[in-house]
Amino acid sequence: MRDIAVFSGSAHTELAAEICHHLGVPLLPTKTSRFANDVIEVQLQGNCRERDVFLIQPLVPPTQENLVELLFMLDAARGASAGRITVVMPHYAYARSDKKDAPRISIGGRLVADLLTTAGANRVLAMTLHAPQVHGFFSIPVDHLHALRELADHFKVYDLSNTVVVSPDLGNAKEAAAFARLLGVGVAAGAKQRFADDKVVISTVIGDVAGKDVIVLDDEIAKGSTVFELLDRLRERGANSVRVACTHGLFAADAVQRLSAEKDIEEIVCTNTVPIPAANQTDKLTVLSVAPALAEAMRRIHNGESVSALFA
Amino acid sequence: MRDIAVFSGSAHTELAAEICHHLGVPLLPTKTSRFANDVIEVQLQGNCRERDVFLIQPLVPPTQENLVELLFMLDAARGASAGRITVVMPHYAYARSDKKDAPRISIGGRLVADLLTTAGANRVLAMTLHAPQVHGFFSIPVDHLHALRELADHFKVYDLSNTVVVSPDLGNAKEAAAFARLLGVGVAAGAKQRFADDKVVISTVIGDVAGKDVIVLDDEIAKGSTVFELLDRLRERGANSVRVACTHGLFAADAVQRLSAEKDIEEIVCTNTVPIPAANQTDKLTVLSVAPALAEAMRRIHNGESVSALFA
Amino acid sequence: MRDIAVFSGSAHTELAAEICHHLGVPLLPTKTSRFANDVIEVQLQGNCRERDVFLIQPLVPPTQENLVELLFMLDAARGASAGRITVVMPHYAYARSDKKDAPRISIGGRLVADLLTTAGANRVLAMTLHAPQVHGFFSIPVDHLHALRELADHFKVYDLSNTVVVSPDLGNAKEAAAFARLLGVGVAAGAKQRFADDKVVISTVIGDVAGKDVIVLDDEIAKGSTVFELLDRLRERGANSVRVACTHGLFAADAVQRLSAEKDIEEIVCTNTVPIPAANQTDKLTVLSVAPALAEAMRRIHNGESVSALFA
Amino acid sequence: MRDIAVFSGSAHTELAAEICHHLGVPLLPTKTSRFANDVIEVQLQGNCRERDVFLIQPLVPPTQENLVELLFMLDAARGASAGRITVVMPHYAYARSDKKDAPRISIGGRLVADLLTTAGANRVLAMTLHAPQVHGFFSIPVDHLHALRELADHFKVYDLSNTVVVSPDLGNAKEAAAFARLLGVGVAAGAKQRFADDKVVISTVIGDVAGKDVIVLDDEIAKGSTVFELLDRLRERGANSVRVACTHGLFAADAVQRLSAEKDIEEIVCTNTVPIPAANQTDKLTVLSVAPALAEAMRRIHNGESVSALFA
Amino acid sequence: MRDIAVFSGSAHTELAAEICHHLGVPLLPTKTSRFANDVIEVQLQGNCRERDVFLIQPLVPPTQENLVELLFMLDAARGASAGRITVVMPHYAYARSDKKDAPRISIGGRLVADLLTTAGANRVLAMTLHAPQVHGFFSIPVDHLHALRELADHFKVYDLSNTVVVSPDLGNAKEAAAFARLLGVGVAAGAKQRFADDKVVISTVIGDVAGKDVIVLDDEIAKGSTVFELLDRLRERGANSVRVACTHGLFAADAVQRLSAEKDIEEIVCTNTVPIPAANQTDKLTVLSVAPALAEAMRRIHNGESVSALFA
Amino acid sequence: MRDIAVFSGSAHTELAAEICHHLGVPLLPTKTSRFANDVIEVQLQGNCRERDVFLIQPLVPPTQENLVELLFMLDAARGASAGRITVVMPHYAYARSDKKDAPRISIGGRLVADLLTTAGANRVLAMTLHAPQVHGFFSIPVDHLHALRELADHFKVYDLSNTVVVSPDLGNAKEAAAFARLLGVGVAAGAKQRFADDKVVISTVIGDVAGKDVIVLDDEIAKGSTVFELLDRLRERGANSVRVACTHGLFAADAVQRLSAEKDIEEIVCTNTVPIPAANQTDKLTVLSVAPALAEAMRRIHNGESVSALFA
Repeated sequence: MRDIAVFSGSAHTELAAEICHHLGVPLLPTKTSRFANDVIEVQLQGNCRERDVFLIQPLVPPTQENLVELLFMLDAARGASAGRITVVMPHYAYARSDKKDAPRISIGGRLVADLLTTAGANRVLAMTLHAPQVHGFFSIPVDHLHALRELADHFKVYDLSNTVVVSPDLGNAKEAAAFARLLGVGVAAGAKQRFADDKVVISTVIGDVAGKDVIVLDDEIAKGSTVFELLDRLRERGANSVRVACTHGLFAADAVQRLSAEKDIEEIVCTNTVPIPAANQTDKLTVLSVAPALAEAMRRIHNGESVSALFA
Repeated sequence: MRDIAVFSGSAHTELAAEICHHLGVPLLPTKTSRFANDVIEVQLQGNCRERDVFLIQPLVPPTQENLVELLFMLDAARGASAGRITVVMPHYAYARSDKKDAPRISIGGRLVADLLTTAGANRVLAMTLHAPQVHGFFSIPVDHLHALRELADHFKVYDLSNTVVVSPDLGNAKEAAAFARLLGVGVAAGAKQRFADDKVVISTVIGDVAGKDVIVLDDEIAKGSTVFELLDRLRERGANSVRVACTHGLFAADAVQRLSAEKDIEEIVCTNTVPIPAANQTDKLTVLSVAPALAEAMRRIHNGESVSALFA
Repeated sequence: MRDIAVFSGSAHTELAAEICHHLGVPLLPTKTSRFANDVIEVQLQGNCRERDVFLIQPLVPPTQENLVELLFMLDAARGASAGRITVVMPHYAYARSDKKDAPRISIGGRLVADLLTTAGANRVLAMTLHAPQVHGFFSIPVDHLHALRELADHFKVYDLSNTVVVSPDLGNAKEAAAFARLLGVGVAAGAKQRFADDKVVISTVIGDVAGKDVIVLDDEIAKGSTVFELLDRLRERGANSVRVACTHGLFAADAVQRLSAEKDIEEIVCTNTVPIPAANQTDKLTVLSVAPALAEAMRRIHNGESVSALFA
Repeated sequence: MRDIAVFSGSAHTELAAEICHHLGVPLLPTKTSRFANDVIEVQLQGNCRERDVFLIQPLVPPTQENLVELLFMLDAARGASAGRITVVMPHYAYARSDKKDAPRISIGGRLVADLLTTAGANRVLAMTLHAPQVHGFFSIPVDHLHALRELADHFKVYDLSNTVVVSPDLGNAKEAAAFARLLGVGVAAGAKQRFADDKVVISTVIGDVAGKDVIVLDDEIAKGSTVFELLDRLRERGANSVRVACTHGLFAADAVQRLSAEKDIEEIVCTNTVPIPAANQTDKLTVLSVAPALAEAMRRIHNGESVSALFA
Repeated sequence: MRDIAVFSGSAHTELAAEICHHLGVPLLPTKTSRFANDVIEVQLQGNCRERDVFLIQPLVPPTQENLVELLFMLDAARGASAGRITVVMPHYAYARSDKKDAPRISIGGRLVADLLTTAGANRVLAMTLHAPQVHGFFSIPVDHLHALRELADHFKVYDLSNTVVVSPDLGNAKEAAAFARLLGVGVAAGAKQRFADDKVVISTVIGDVAGKDVIVLDDEIAKGSTVFELLDRLRERGANSVRVACTHGLFAADAVQRLSAEKDIEEIVCTNTVPIPAANQTDKLTVLSVAPALAEAMRRIHNGESVSALFA
Repeated sequence: MRDIAVFSGSAHTELAAEICHHLGVPLLPTKTSRFANDVIEVQLQGNCRERDVFLIQPLVPPTQENLVELLFMLDAARGASAGRITVVMPHYAYARSDKKDAPRISIGGRLVADLLTTAGANRVLAMTLHAPQVHGFFSIPVDHLHALRELADHFKVYDLSNTVVVSPDLGNAKEAAAFARLLGVGVAAGAKQRFADDKVVISTVIGDVAGKDVIVLDDEIAKGSTVFELLDRLRERGANSVRVACTHGLFAADAVQRLSAEKDIEEIVCTNTVPIPAANQTDKLTVLSVAPALAEAMRRIHNGESVSALFA
C-alpha cells in the first residue's frame, strides 16, 4: 500500500500536528510564500508521488486566504503525482451559503465544492456540516464525522439526573436528540428565525426547561446571537443552570468573552475544529480535541476500512 | 442583440465607473456582504438573464480576497442565467506563477484560469499579461490588450531626439522595441537575473545609453527592485536623464515614494489597471487611463467586431 | 429571437396543454414508443433547430419511467440542435433524497440533477422544491417558483378573522409564515419526527390553535401520514375547523379518499403540479392550476425578463 | 490487492448468486426501498471502501426501473469510496437504439452509456451486444463476451452430420459463421427487413437448407417474429428439423410458449443472461448458464489478467 | 442573426469554393504554415467573432495531416470567439474504424469524434457515414446527408426498363433498396466477407441479375477489391451490362484506371465529397457535385430550418 | 505493484529499445496498419490490463502522423484497461506553438496537451521543453527532465580552462548558465530576434568571447539558422574555437551537413531524443544517449520515487 503523506495549510497547524502525533507519522512541511503582488505560492516539502496525501485545512477566518491556499496545495499535490488527495476539512465555513434565498446570489457551499474538485481533490473528510444536504454539493466522496461522542464524554462525568439538552433551533433538533440519547437525558428545542447574519429571534421553547440543568447544543457559535437569545428564553422559563456546547467554536466579536461574562452560563465547551486564539481562553471555556477522531478516520480511509462503522 | 450588463467587484470600482462612463451604460450595483465566519456572499443587483454580462475585477492585492469575490460573482451571474459572462481583468497577478521552477509547487496562473472557468467565465479581457504563454493557460477565449499606445501618446509631446527606450530585462525587450518604434527612437536592454521575489541583478546593459534620455519600460513595478538595479547600471554608463513607464503600477512597499525620491528619475508613468491609493500620488507620478481602451474593447466584444484589428 | 417550441412527456399532458394555451403556442407532439424489450424511444415531432425548447415533465409516479422518458427527450432535443433546452419540472420527486442519513446510500436529488445535465438540459424551471438546498444540486441555472400566491387567492374569499396557518413541520415553517403573511393571519407549527417513509410522530404544536379555524399547509401530501398525525394533535388542542392545503397533491394509497372521509376536514386544496386522476376527485378536493404561473415564467425566460421579480 | 465486493440489483438475483458461487465470494445484500412518491433509494449493505466493486444488473424489463436502480447503485458505490466500479451487464437492452433512422429521436444506446459514466461506472462487462459499434458508445473500457462456446457445447453431443446453422439476418451472419465453425458444420442466412418493432419480412434464404437439420442462431429472441418468419421460409425450402438457439431469451408476449407449440421446432436453447420466469419453462426450453463465464471474466478483471485471451 | 464565415482546410478547396459560390458568400482564406520541425500553424484570415463559422474539411488522404489541420482550425476559431463552429466533413475516413474486432485496438471513429469536440467543434455536417451507428459516436449534433438523390438524377435519363441495382454487401442493402425505389427498379445484393483491408470474398448474389443492366451501388470505393469481386459474380450470372456508382470516390491504387479498363463496366459515377485528381479523370468516370446539397444544408443550419425535412 | 508494460510508436523505436534494455523489460510490440483510405489502426500486442503502461513517442517529423499514432495508442491502452498511462515524449515539437502572436491562430502546444488528455494520457515524461510555461499547458502531471548532465559529462574530458558557454538567445540564458556551472566555466549570450521561422538576427553578444573556446548551447537545432547567425557574431569577436551542443538534434534541411562543413565548428553534440538518420551521421557529430536517464525516470515513476530529487 502506498505510504501516507500529511501536510497542513496555515489555518490550524496545531490540530494538524496533534493529528500526526496520533497517527504516528510526521507532519511534512508546507512552505507558503507571498510575492510582492500578494499572490501566494505553495510548495509541499515532502515526496507526494503515488502517496496517499492528506491536506489538513479547516476553512476558517481568514476564510478566503485559507481557501486559496488550500486550492494551491491541491494543485501542487496533483502536479506532484499524488496517488490520492484527501482534504481534511474539520470546518467548512462556506456550508452556511447553501441556498438561494435572494435573486442573483452565489451558492458558495456548492461553488467551493466544485473549486476543490477542479484543483484536484479526490475526497473530503468533514466534520459537522451546517446542513446535511451540503454533502450532496460534492461530486467526490465525503466522509462526514460528528463530534457528539467527544462532547458527551465530557458531560458524562456530571450528575445528569436533572438535565435536559436544548437545541436553539428546531432545524438542528435531530442532532440534539442524538446527543441527549448519548447522555440518557431529555431534549427540548427553540423555534428560531434568522432575520440577518446577526439578528435572530427565538419565539418559544418546546419542551420543559423549568428548574432544569440545561445543556445548550449547537453546531457552531460565531457571534453568539443565537445563544444570547436562547438564554433570555431559558431565564424566562426558569432554567436552573446553563452549559453551552458546540462543535465549531468560531467565537467572532468577543463572543466567548461575552458568553463567559454571563453569570447564568457555567461552562462553554467546544472542540478544536477551529483554532482558539489564546485571547479567547477564558476560565469557563473547555476545548475538546477532535484530533484522535480525525486521526482514526484518516487511518481507516488509508486502510480502506469503513468510516461509518466507527462512528455509528 | 442582448443588452449589456456591467458589474464591478471591490478591487477597482473607480476604473469600472470610468469604463461605464465611456460605454454610456450604468455600472450596476454589486452587494458583497460578509458573514460572521468571514465567508463572503455576492449579490448582483441588476437583471442578468440572457444579458451580455461583464464583470470588472483586476486581480490585485488583497489578491486572494479579490479572486474569491470574482469567483462568487461568476457563480451568481451564471446562476442568474447570464447569456455570456466576460471577465474584464486589467491585471492578472497570478500570471507571475507560470512555471514549475521547483518541485511540488503550484502553477497558479494555470490553476486560477481553470477556477475562473469552473465558476462560469465564458471569456476574458486581459491587459499586458506577464508572459505571452499565459494566454494558453485559458481554455476559454482571451482578448489580450496592450497599453503601449496610451503610454506612447504621453511621451510623444516631449523632445525625443536624444531618447532611448530601455527594457530592464531581455525577456521583455520585444515589447520595449515595439514601444520604441511607436516613439521613433532606439532601444536597449538589461540582462536581468532574478534570485528571489525581491532580489534581482542586472549584469549589463546592451545598447548605447551614455548621454541619452532614457525611458525605462517594464510591464509592472511592484517593489521596484528591478528599476533600482537598472538605475545603478544607467548611472554607471552615464545616462543623461531617466523616466520610468509601466502598465501595472502595483507599487508595493513604498516603491513609488522611493522611486520619486531618486533625483535621477524625472517622471514615473503608469496606467490605472491597478488602483493607485492617494498615498501613492507623488508629484512625479502620472497615471494614464486605460478605461477608454477597455470600454472600446468591450463595445467590440459585445458587437462581435474584431478586437485584434483595433489594437494592431 | 429564436422561436419557442414546447413538448410534453407522458407524465402530465393536461398541464402541458393548459400551459400552451396560456402561452398561445401549440403543444408539439411527442411520440414515445416501446420496443419488445421494454426500451422506450422518443421522437419529438416538431422542428427544434435553434429553437428555445421547453420540455414539460413533472417527475411523478411512475417516477423512474418518467425520468428516463425525460432523459431521452433531452437527448433527442440536443441531437436535433435545439438552441436552448429548459426542463419544466413542476414536481421533482427525487428532491426527497437529499442527504446521506445512512452509509452507502445514493443521494438521488443530486444524481438526477447530474443525469439531466448529462442528457442535455440547459436550465430548469421547478416549483416548491422539498428543501431549498436542492437548488444547489444543479450545476445549471434553476428558476424556482412557489404556488403560495395561487393558494392564498383561493382562501382569501373566506372569512379569515379566526384563522391560523399551521405547518406540520418546523422545517417547513418559513413557508407557512410567508403564506400566513399573504393571508394576514397567524401561524403555528408542529414538531415532526420521521421514523420511516410512512411513520411520523408530531410531539407537539407550537402556537395557539384552540378554537381556531386551521389551514394546514405542507409542500406535498403523499400517503398523508403527516396530516393524519397533525389532525390528532389539532383535535387534542380543540381546533374549530381544519382545511388542508399543499402544492403537490401526490395522494398515494387513497390518501385523498381517507382525508376526505375525515369529518373534521372541510376542504383539501392542492395544485395541478401533479396529475390528479379522476378517481381522486372527491367533493372536498379543489385543484388549483399553476399553468398560468408556469406559462408566465416560461414567457419571461424566453424573453430574458426577470423571473424572480415576478414572484417577489 | 483490494478485495472484491459483489452486489446485485433487482433484475436478476439468481444469476448474481450463481456467479458469486463460482467466484467463491458472498453476494453482499442490496436494499432497494421505495418512497410514497415511487422514488427508489438504494443502500449497498457491505463495505465498498477501496474495494473492487462489481454491480450485477442486466438491463431487462422492467427496463427503465432496472436502469435507474443501477444508476443509484453506482452513485451509492462511488459515494462510499469504491476503489473501482465495474458494471456487469449481461444484457444491454438499450443497444437496440443505436442509430438515428428518423429525425429528432434519441440514440438510447449512446445516452445510457453516458448516464452510466455520469453515475460513476469505471468499466463494463457486457455480453453479446446487439451491434459491435455499440462498444464505441462507451467512453470507459468494455469487456465484451460471447456465449457461443456455451451454446456450441450444448449442441456438440448431437449427430451434426446433416446440420446447417442458419442466421435469420445477414447482418448477424458473421456470428453464425463463427458458431458453425465451432460445430464443424455449414452456414446459411436469411435476408431480413424490419418494418416495425414486431413486423419483419425475410424475403429469401441464402445457402442450402433442403433436407437439413437446421440450428437457427440469433442474438436475442423477444416477440419471436423473426423466428416465425424464418420458420415459414425453412418449411417452404423443405428443412428436415429445426432447433432454435439464442443468447438473450427475452421471450416477450408468450414467445416461448408459441415457439414451443410449433411442431417443427424440436428445441429452444438460450442462456440465463436474462431471467426466465417459471411460466416460460416449457419442455422444449433449455437454459444454459453463463455464470461460469462471467465469474471467470470477473476474476480476470480483478486480477488484471487478459479477458480477450480467455475467449479467443 | 450572426453572419456566416466559411473557411476551408487543405483537403478539398475546390469543393469549398463551389459551396461558397452556391451560398453566395466569400471563401475566407486560411493560412497553413509549417515550422522547420514539421509542426503546422493555422491562421483563419477573416473575422470569426460571434460569427456562425463553417470549416470545410473532408477527412481524406493524407488523412492524419488533414485531421490535425482541422483540429488546429477548430482551436483557432474557438480562440477567436466564434459564435458557433460547424465542421463540414463530406467524408469521414475514420468511420471505418468503428468496432473492436481484435483486443487492444483503437476505435478511431469514436476517438476522432471526441478529439473534434475537444478542439472546439459545436456540430458536424457529414455525408454517407460508413455505418449509421457512427452517428452515435459524436456527443455533438450531427446532420447526416445522403447523395442518393444526386446519383439517381444522373441515372434517370437512361432507359431503366431492364435495370437492377446491386449492393455488393448485404450490410449496405438498405441504402441500395432506397436508391432502387428512387429509380423505380428492382434490387439485388451480394453476400460479402472481408478477410483483410483489401481481401474480400462475395460468395453469392441474392436476386436475379441474369440479362439485366446492373447498377452497382456502394458507399465508397477505395482499392475497388469489392467491385472486382462482385464483377466476377455478375459475369458468372450473365449480367447484361454494369455501371458503378458510389458516394465517396477514394480510388486508391489506380482503382479508377483498373475499373475503367474493364470492358464490362460502361460507366463509373461518384460525387466530389473526395477530391478527384486529374490523373483519375478517365473517360468512363463521371463526378457529380454535392456542393449544392451541402450549401443548402449549411444555409438551413444557419437559418435554423429543418435539415431532415429537406432530404426526406 | 502492477507490472510495467512499455510500447513504442513509429517515431523512434531505437530509443525505445535502448530504454527497455536499461529497464530490463521487453519492448512489447505495437502493430500500426493503414487502411486503403490512409486511416491508421493501432494494436498494442501485450496485456495492458491494470498494468503501468508507458508509451514512448517523441513528437518529431512526420509530426502530424506521429501525433495521431500516439493518440490512437492512448485510446487503445485506455480501452484495454491500462492501470495508468504515461506518455514518454522526449521531444514535444508543438511546444514551439506556445503563444498567440497573431490574431486567429491556434496555440498548438496547449491544444495538443488537451488532445493527449482526451485520448487517455494520465501523465507525461518530457525532456527540455522549449519554454518552461509549456508545463502549465498540461492538466495532467508532467515530469520534465533536462539533458544538461549528459552534455556536461561529454565536455568535462576536455581542457576547459579557456572555455565559455554561449547561449544564442537571452531567453535561453538561464539554462546556459546552469550548464556553465556544471562545467565550472563562464557564460555569454546573444541577443536574438526571430523574424520568421527561418530568419533570425543576433544583434550583439553579451560577455567576452574574444580568444575563447566557445561551447554554443541551444535547446534544439532545426534548420540551424540561429547557430549560423551566432557563428558570424563569434567570428567578428574573434572566438578561438566553436563547439555546438543541443538536446534536440532535429537537423532539418541538411543542417548537420552544413554545420559540419563550417571549418570553425570543431564538433556538434546532441542527444538521441530525436532519431538521427544515418545520412546525418557526419564525422563531427556526436550523439549522446538519454536512454539511461529516461529509463531511470520511468523506474522512479513506476516505483513512486521522487523524480525531481534525481535530477536536482
